[in-house]
Amino acid sequence: MKEIKISKLDKRGLTAVSGYKAAGVACGIKKDKKDLAVIYSEFDAVAAGVFTCNLVQAAPVYQCKANLENPIRVVVINSGNANACTGNQGMQDAYAMAADSASALGVDPGQAMVCSTGVIGEPMPMDKVQAGIKLIPHALSRGIDADINAAEAILTTDTKVKLSAYSCEMPEGNFHLAGMAKGSGMICPNMATMLAFLVTDVKIKRPLLQKLFSEASDRSFNVITVDGDTSTNDTALILANGAAEGIEVTEDSIYLEPFKEMLEKVCRELALQIVEDGEGLTKLITLTIKGAVEESGARVMARSILNSPLVKTAFYGEDANWGRIIAALGYAGIDFDPSLVDIFIGPYQVARDGGAVPFSEEKMKKVLEERDISVLIDLKIGSAEVTAWGTDLSHEYININADYRS
Amino acid sequence: MKEIKISKLDKRGLTAVSGYKAAGVACGIKKDKKDLAVIYSEFDAVAAGVFTCNLVQAAPVYQCKANLENPIRVVVINSGNANACTGNQGMQDAYAMAADSASALGVDPGQAMVCSTGVIGEPMPMDKVQAGIKLIPHALSRGIDADINAAEAILTTDTKVKLSAYSCEMPEGNFHLAGMAKGSGMICPNMATMLAFLVTDVKIKRPLLQKLFSEASDRSFNVITVDGDTSTNDTALILANGAAEGIEVTEDSIYLEPFKEMLEKVCRELALQIVEDGEGLTKLITLTIKGAVEESGARVMARSILNSPLVKTAFYGEDANWGRIIAALGYAGIDFDPSLVDIFIGPYQVARDGGAVPFSEEKMKKVLEERDISVLIDLKIGSAEVTAWGTDLSHEYININADYRS
Repeated sequence: MKEIKISKLDKRGLTAVSGYKAAGVACGIKKDKKDLAVIYSEFDAVAAGVFTCNLVQAAPVYQCKANLENPIRVVVINSGNANACTGNQGMQDAYAMAADSASALGVDPGQAMVCSTGVIGEPMPMDKVQAGIKLIPHALSRGIDADINAAEAILTTDTKVKLSAYSCEMPEGNFHLAGMAKGSGMICPNMATMLAFLVTDVKIKRPLLQKLFSEASDRSFNVITVDGDTSTNDTALILANGAAEGIEVTEDSIYLEPFKEMLEKVCRELALQIVEDGEGLTKLITLTIKGAVEESGARVMARSILNSPLVKTAFYGEDANWGRIIAALGYAGIDFDPSLVDIFIGPYQVARDGGAVPFSEEKMKKVLEERDISVLIDLKIGSAEVTAWGTDLSHEYININADYRS
Repeated sequence: MKEIKISKLDKRGLTAVSGYKAAGVACGIKKDKKDLAVIYSEFDAVAAGVFTCNLVQAAPVYQCKANLENPIRVVVINSGNANACTGNQGMQDAYAMAADSASALGVDPGQAMVCSTGVIGEPMPMDKVQAGIKLIPHALSRGIDADINAAEAILTTDTKVKLSAYSCEMPEGNFHLAGMAKGSGMICPNMATMLAFLVTDVKIKRPLLQKLFSEASDRSFNVITVDGDTSTNDTALILANGAAEGIEVTEDSIYLEPFKEMLEKVCRELALQIVEDGEGLTKLITLTIKGAVEESGARVMARSILNSPLVKTAFYGEDANWGRIIAALGYAGIDFDPSLVDIFIGPYQVARDGGAVPFSEEKMKKVLEERDISVLIDLKIGSAEVTAWGTDLSHEYININADYRS
């Protein structure tokens, strides 16, 4: 049996992957902070993406979708302004950002994708963006600094950069997968104010990449929630540029399983970093729903619970209020049998067959005092299982969000 | 033209209506507070009801539904314990509450309906409830004290009693409609932790009463939201006992319109009192969506906006963040054209055709400093219009909800 070694590359980001450079600069959209990031691939890359389901979509989301099937070389991302609800001018600005970046880097306009995050409804300060783009050719580089600069430039209310990188060593050769993300408020399943950018050096056909990326997103970016709002700009992109010679991921190649494993790891690590940077978080809730009929339904249930302000404030208050959990389960809109439901908080069962189980308040207190709390719900009607992550709702959340625009 | 005079009966509740008595006593479920209310009709009453859509429904909800078509004489309501997630014992207890109340008042067990509100998953302290029911025959009376005692006994985290009463004088005779309600946290469209009890002395057939009550609920109880959670116990009931001699409301009677008007007034006033007692409320948001294709879709949109934590914290922070409003509109799941949307906050337009409209920050500040804030959204695609009410999300909300169970 051949040896496959998957290793985490600590503190590394996008440029740990062959054939990519990155940069993050300050162009003045935000005050004294980096606000323009660029990812550059030395080779034509195939791209796959997952986008917001919000009916109101920002101009750059349209620009990304329209160019998703092109051979991509550049992704340019700004923070501080979402370029959303900006009408025709916004579309023009998004396309101008693509054209200017492409021109600065000597590629075709259709080979550049644009993402934006920030305030909605304000025109893009294009003079600043254009000045920033001029800095890019010189700023692009490889290494830890490049990884971090790019990751910083996409942040908004985030308190930390979010990075994840892996390498896979096999006798046939090595390949890599890495990503960076932003998001802390407004994080919800279906991509709320979240941007994620992954790059890999394998060769892979677009349909397979899209399929694998959609699946990995469903188990990571789509099962995290901070406040249930879904934004106008959420986008997760992956590029694959084939720089790792001879490594082609196909449905029946030996590289498929290690690639899937790395993809799942990177997506999940980025998603968890987003939740852990959740606005005002004092608790990280890991919720598993098992015994469900379908994964998709279980995901809806998990979101319903993790989005419930009453569940969230109960965890903030360190209160084992399983009644609020089962109530949120009940209004999720997915069928189940309430009289079968078992609920555990930490190691302790609090409900059996839909009714109360006595538990030690003292032991439960210790579980709830921890920052990391696990909740297990067994619906006992099927065999599907989903794990999702959420946060509590704290005073700090309100402080952060009460004056974001001003 | 005959004269119709509809008058508000200030500070009055249920017993302003002919043929009803009420009581509220303390039986010890809650500490030192009234926690058991009874509504008694001197005549057989037809009943109509609107119930929670939560898949997890408390035992008393089943009991009410099962008896809704009977000639009703008694409604018994306890606060402090929801009798939810209590299994077969809970069903037994709900039916025992009905039987004991009926027996104490000399009516049939099937003529009594039961409602409960409070903590989920704890067994009903039936010894206390039974002791309380013994006090009822003596406690039942008419007048302001009876109105208030009953209204107090159904409260949980509410800070105020919620009452509304109207009389209608016509040459043919007078009739009345009154109601009481509870609810402050966990209030959402589709009846979240809300109880409402209305009584009238008209004669009316059950199907018409149900139709009118469902319509009035859709425009009142179902368009208020504090935190979007839908509880296991929400119930709104109306009784009509025909004590106003000669007044029968039918589809073509002269009483139909004044009755509908009173019904709408009482439902709306109770609903608004619930929102205004919203947990931690510092702002009351009145949201109108016009130009919609259908009322039902507009209601879903209104809930999406008023439930958004980001919209709610923005209002708490007195921030005219219309981007969050349009984003919440976009993920409501109802079709519309983002490039047509106009938004007004107070008298000032902030968005036109989906894009920003410059406004005076100074004038807007004055609008947002007020407790009552109106928001108007014009979708410009149809002629349906809905008005809904919500609150901001404040620090106080978290204080109240972080330790409700403990």
